Amino acid sequence: MSKDYVHGYDPKENIRLQDQASTLVELLHSDTSYPAGSKVLEAGCGVGAQTITLAQNSPEALITSVDISKDSIAEAKKKVGAAGITNVKFEQGDIFNLSFEPHSFDHIFVCFILEHLARPIEALRALKKLLKVDGTITVIEGDHGSAYFYPDSKEAHKAIQCQVELQKRAGGNAMIGRELYPLLRAAEYKSIQVSPRMVYVDFTKPELVKGFTKKTFTAMIEGVRESALDAKIIDQATFDKGIRDLYRTTELDGVFCYTFFKAVARNS
Amino acid sequence: MSKDYVHGYDPKENIRLQDQASTLVELLHSDTSYPAGSKVLEAGCGVGAQTITLAQNSPEALITSVDISKDSIAEAKKKVGAAGITNVKFEQGDIFNLSFEPHSFDHIFVCFILEHLARPIEALRALKKLLKVDGTITVIEGDHGSAYFYPDSKEAHKAIQCQVELQKRAGGNAMIGRELYPLLRAAEYKSIQVSPRMVYVDFTKPELVKGFTKKTFTAMIEGVRESALDAKIIDQATFDKGIRDLYRTTELDGVFCYTFFKAVARNS
Repeated sequence: MSKDYVHGYDPKENIRLQDQASTLVELLHSDTSYPAGSKVLEAGCGVGAQTITLAQNSPEALITSVDISKDSIAEAKKKVGAAGITNVKFEQGDIFNLSFEPHSFDHIFVCFILEHLARPIEALRALKKLLKVDGTITVIEGDHGSAYFYPDSKEAHKAIQCQVELQKRAGGNAMIGRELYPLLRAAEYKSIQVSPRMVYVDFTKPELVKGFTKKTFTAMIEGVRESALDAKIIDQATFDKGIRDLYRTTELDGVFCYTFFKAVARNS
Repeated sequence: MSKDYVHGYDPKENIRLQDQASTLVELLHSDTSYPAGSKVLEAGCGVGAQTITLAQNSPEALITSVDISKDSIAEAKKKVGAAGITNVKFEQGDIFNLSFEPHSFDHIFVCFILEHLARPIEALRALKKLLKVDGTITVIEGDHGSAYFYPDSKEAHKAIQCQVELQKRAGGNAMIGRELYPLLRAAEYKSIQVSPRMVYVDFTKPELVKGFTKKTFTAMIEGVRESALDAKIIDQATFDKGIRDLYRTTELDGVFCYTFFKAVARNS
């Protein structure tokens, strides 16, 4: 597993990802597994959404999960404890200024973090210093500009654009997925390999219709309704039609597409 | 091969498609192989662009390639003859009204044809009548709405939109890829399986930078320059900047994404 991991992706694992993955967790995480005894840094664990999967896929790795928010860490600890996971320790810290010794990790894992940072290259550079000379970094990000669907809808695109605009105003970038290669390159990582993970959803994939199009993507866009209206980015009628049109893509003849990007790169 | 084919895609073949395909031919065609003796209809062969690959991947299948244009068929015949291929015969005919007996083909193959038709569902229905009861149809189409890139560029999207608009005015649909599932469903095919084929291009994939982003996609958009300007869909400065920005995505830090859709369905 380690060898395949370091070289990129295990083809036999990867096939499930595209055509056969029935859940987002499978699609994004099933090909990340770290060897026994390896020291892994999860940079930005939030409330532990990815930590459990990470730890379960690498049960003998020694994982350190950090986040800038004490409250998030408390939540993550609870979750991980409840799942009976014992190979994760938590530390509070700022990704730009962590207190670990240089070159102290074999692998670094960063998932859905760069999209929130105004200076993602700087963050990647700071993490690089913590990585062993032959270590790897794995980065996963979505890209809201990759969303398209049938039936197509201008209003749905405008509603999605509200989330993009709000994230931008908060200093982030909801379309960062496509940029993983240039970002890692700018931060001077080597052997960068980017693997797009496209979620294609039609009515033959009921788990994804419900689990991704409805409960993940559309719910997230729906969640910015008040903020978008308050910020006067969109009018209410347009936003609401956009959301209805996104749900419309989950009907019998609907199709929804979205792409996540996963990159693996080496320190040197 | 036949079994895998009928059931959808051979996973071991398919993996090459996503992360490892270095050419478009591999990405789109390497998992289509018809058994010895099977009767295959290529509906809409044009000048034979796909016919050679189709015949080479199924050297013992009996392929009939049809097109509405006599000139195109003459060109396709030359090409296939020059390649030393002997398992293809050509016939001129209209896809909506072909003269073959009902249920006379084991498999039908339709590539980059539906995008040009005003009535794609009707075409699929007409083809269904020619298919054996346990036969399959394979459909491949692109989707220009799936193109996105880094650096992003409004002008590049506008230039792409010119091709979409011109194809629409000609009765076609350059964004039909995402619709394969609803189209096949409306034409009453069964066991429809759609497999997206995303072309992800960064500087680590020089064959695709040159062979796809530059020589296939951008060249095609560049090719509608005069028509788009004549039709006053766009001004010259915007179009030309759009093309420059598409080429810009082929530089060291650039990224280009495009998705083709491949569907396999059964007659019943």
